[in-house]
Amino acid sequence: MTEFGGVPFSTEDAVLDSRRTDRSGSLVEGRPEAVLLPRDAADVAKALRWATSTGTPIVPRGAGTSLTGASTAGTGTVVLDLSGMNRIVSLSAADATAVVEPGVITADLDRAAATAGLRYAPDPASHEISTIGGNIATNAGGLRCAKYGVTRDSVLGLSVILADGTRIETGTRTFKGVAGYDLTGLFVGSEGTLGVVVAATVRLRPIPAGLTTIAASFTDAAAACTALAGVPGQPVIAELLDAAALSAVDAYLGTSLAARGSALLIVQVSSGVDGVLSALRPTAVSLEVSSDGDALLHARRSALPAIEQLGRPLIEDIAVPRSRLPEAITAIADIAARWQIPICTLAHAADGNLHPIIVDDPSRPAAAASAADEIFALALKLGGTITGEHGIGTLKREWLTRELDPANLTLQRGLKSLFDPNGILNPGKVL
Amino acid sequence: MTEFGGVPFSTEDAVLDSRRTDRSGSLVEGRPEAVLLPRDAADVAKALRWATSTGTPIVPRGAGTSLTGASTAGTGTVVLDLSGMNRIVSLSAADATAVVEPGVITADLDRAAATAGLRYAPDPASHEISTIGGNIATNAGGLRCAKYGVTRDSVLGLSVILADGTRIETGTRTFKGVAGYDLTGLFVGSEGTLGVVVAATVRLRPIPAGLTTIAASFTDAAAACTALAGVPGQPVIAELLDAAALSAVDAYLGTSLAARGSALLIVQVSSGVDGVLSALRPTAVSLEVSSDGDALLHARRSALPAIEQLGRPLIEDIAVPRSRLPEAITAIADIAARWQIPICTLAHAADGNLHPIIVDDPSRPAAAASAADEIFALALKLGGTITGEHGIGTLKREWLTRELDPANLTLQRGLKSLFDPNGILNPGKVL
Ligand SMILES: Cc1cc2nc3c(=O)[nH]c(=O)nc-3n(C[C@H](O)[C@H](O)[C@H](O)COP(=O)(O)OP(=O)(O)OC[C@H]3O[C@@H](n4cnc5c(N)ncnc54)[C@H](O)[C@@H]3O)c2cc1C
Ligand SMILES: Cc1cc2nc3c(=O)[nH]c(=O)nc-3n(C[C@H](O)[C@H](O)[C@H](O)COP(=O)(O)OP(=O)(O)OC[C@H]3O[C@@H](n4cnc5c(N)ncnc54)[C@H](O)[C@@H]3O)c2cc1C
Repeated sequence: MTEFGGVPFSTEDAVLDSRRTDRSGSLVEGRPEAVLLPRDAADVAKALRWATSTGTPIVPRGAGTSLTGASTAGTGTVVLDLSGMNRIVSLSAADATAVVEPGVITADLDRAAATAGLRYAPDPASHEISTIGGNIATNAGGLRCAKYGVTRDSVLGLSVILADGTRIETGTRTFKGVAGYDLTGLFVGSEGTLGVVVAATVRLRPIPAGLTTIAASFTDAAAACTALAGVPGQPVIAELLDAAALSAVDAYLGTSLAARGSALLIVQVSSGVDGVLSALRPTAVSLEVSSDGDALLHARRSALPAIEQLGRPLIEDIAVPRSRLPEAITAIADIAARWQIPICTLAHAADGNLHPIIVDDPSRPAAAASAADEIFALALKLGGTITGEHGIGTLKREWLTRELDPANLTLQRGLKSLFDPNGILNPGKVL
Repeated sequence: MTEFGGVPFSTEDAVLDSRRTDRSGSLVEGRPEAVLLPRDAADVAKALRWATSTGTPIVPRGAGTSLTGASTAGTGTVVLDLSGMNRIVSLSAADATAVVEPGVITADLDRAAATAGLRYAPDPASHEISTIGGNIATNAGGLRCAKYGVTRDSVLGLSVILADGTRIETGTRTFKGVAGYDLTGLFVGSEGTLGVVVAATVRLRPIPAGLTTIAASFTDAAAACTALAGVPGQPVIAELLDAAALSAVDAYLGTSLAARGSALLIVQVSSGVDGVLSALRPTAVSLEVSSDGDALLHARRSALPAIEQLGRPLIEDIAVPRSRLPEAITAIADIAARWQIPICTLAHAADGNLHPIIVDDPSRPAAAASAADEIFALALKLGGTITGEHGIGTLKREWLTRELDPANLTLQRGLKSLFDPNGILNPGKVL
């Protein structure tokens, strides 16, 4: 067989080095042998046939923005870089659907939809750099999940190349469909370990009219959560920043949010503003209302760069039942105090999904790791999960075996063997 | 081993006969040998251990309202009737979740949620008689899907007994979670062929405030669909009745809907009524607005009993991309004319999901079957699916092999073997 199945590739040092890790910064032994640059689904099929025949481990890769080491690639592996397959194949306003290649940048699809008066709802904070294929493979979430759900909820059907190079179509081009087992759902979130997505039919949503954004400060996170629970209807966005996050933002933007109250809640709705105000006003210590969502969300969007000023951020991602959110935030602050390490918490509050961002202290590497472990244990103790939207990758494999029962894990492994009997797809990830 | 693993059972004639078929009315050879009546998950596990050790085919059953023969049970099979496991184990307003046994009646859960100001969103037209377990096993839809999606979108996690009696927990109790492959999604819609659901954690939703319902008549379905496409935002409900359905309703209720126009569109929204009216008014031939949704939805809810006056209804269920809805409705009317058989079409219009209801003519049984085949072929031709929400059961197995490509079918069969290596769970269904 031709080298790499005849698929375009690079073995340049700079390219190999840049595909070694992802945005988690986690390191693996060595670097990939080559980076394949498929132009289309046929190239992907060729690459996987070649990989199967040679027994070569393949690491599918979108933009490499994973925070869990899901797209790290070491010695002996070959990276299948899908970022070049980035065409929006079709977009139908009448059907409110689009067909896209996996390398399309998330925000580009949203912008294309906007020209038709629609939105592509999933908006991970990485949306300007992440790819749809990566979003699908991690079932990415984002701010707008509160209203629209996660990436799974916007994916109708997939074209997937299996490990042996076979192409299959899953799901439908319709909004509903129950013909056979839900293979689409199985590929979504499978982190490149079951097949390679070469095209997706996604659902687009109407852009809600007249969005109003409300930012309210509270004395503490518990008060903010209680107030949010009283908000009628389903907000489009409901984000919470804790005291540590607000201090970081203040230092970065020159604001004085932390002085107002130790928790900031930002709620966006498309109707029922009065109901939101009635729910928040009694306990809020300050409150701002704006039709310019970007202005009030600026603090939230600046949080990560703000935290980066303090040191290398380890972005964690747990979810708890909604009522346990205040308890989780308090417990995380305790963990930070105990390990004497800054942890700033952002939360997709309506979904009970928290991002405790640990600022690494290079002089005490054990501190961050121990704090992270305690955060995962906390999530499970509160009836939650070790990952709300970022996935398992390499970094949470240990913890996956604590979250899932042995019978569940056995089935997970069975699925992996069924789809990838030779174990060539992103080995060492998830399981 | 004790008979039936020591699980309570009945072998009374009347009981066996009543569990032979489901609401599809389709017949299988003979009748089940026994009907097991488990009281709890432990009984289900005992039953399945017994079934595995004796190689007995098990037919899980909720309320038997399947329209596809999914719960039919013939000679040599044993029915596992879950309708007695009908406790709402817990319901948390703070978490907006509930934990339920599979035999809970759909509408009962919705009513329990309502006492906490919440709703259980999935509302198949059978909601007063169907069970949550059956809804999960078929991924049931309903009127409110337009806003909330299908049953899958309200299921967070499951307790499942596998074929060999092992119990596993899937998913989370949180709104988001991506720890491992999506087993929850795999069990949802699997029609009792992969495992038996013994408990589910479901998501509840806020009851939208101030619902307004608009009923508008149009000269034809195409005009109604075009008007609907112009409605801004996401309606809670958007139902369409075609000319044949309206005539049946008129004869049953003494109304004169068909005289107004040959298509009736019923739209329910929680905000933005003016926008809806602006979209519908220019082309509607008549228009009614009410804050009493039940009054305007009465025509839709009466459609099935109305059609039953004409003869035995065969309720079909296809979905097409939204823009193809008018074409589908016209083509279905043509099929009815060609086969000289009444077909009344109801549609969950916002989702492109149609229920062409064929009125069987016992003197010409081939007519209904041929018309149904043409309807499935039409769905595939228009880029749609042979089932939007009712599933495959026994009646659409043939057609499943036409909708899915061979590689997809191979994986489907692989999944079945992985979960149920001895083929004891609802054999002969789906695949
Ligand atoms: C600043 C920042 C903010 C973030 N915010 C969020 C957020 O709000 N919500 C959230 O969910 N995540 C967030 N993330 C994490 C990350 O952006 C997401 O996981 C994203 O979905 C990854 O997309 P990617 O294209 O970079 O994928 P990669 O990192 O390249 O890959 C991720 C995984 O997907 C697999 N993969 C990629 N493409 C394919 C394909 N075509 N077929 C099969 N498998 C494939 C890879 O093998 C890997 O397992 C954030 C990351 C950063 C750096
Ligand atoms: C008048 C009428 C209107 C209807 N309207 C709709 C509608 O609007 N939308 C819609 O989607 N459907 C509709 N249906 C179809 C039907 O009601 C649904 O499919 C419903 O979900 C079946 O629930 P059930 O409890 O009756 O299940 P059953 O018919 O008893 O079983 C259905 C399938 O689920 C399996 N099953 C049942 N319980 C379990 C369990 N605990 N674990 C594993 N497998 C299980 C069975 O083996 C079978 O394969 C309608 C039916 C009727 C008669």
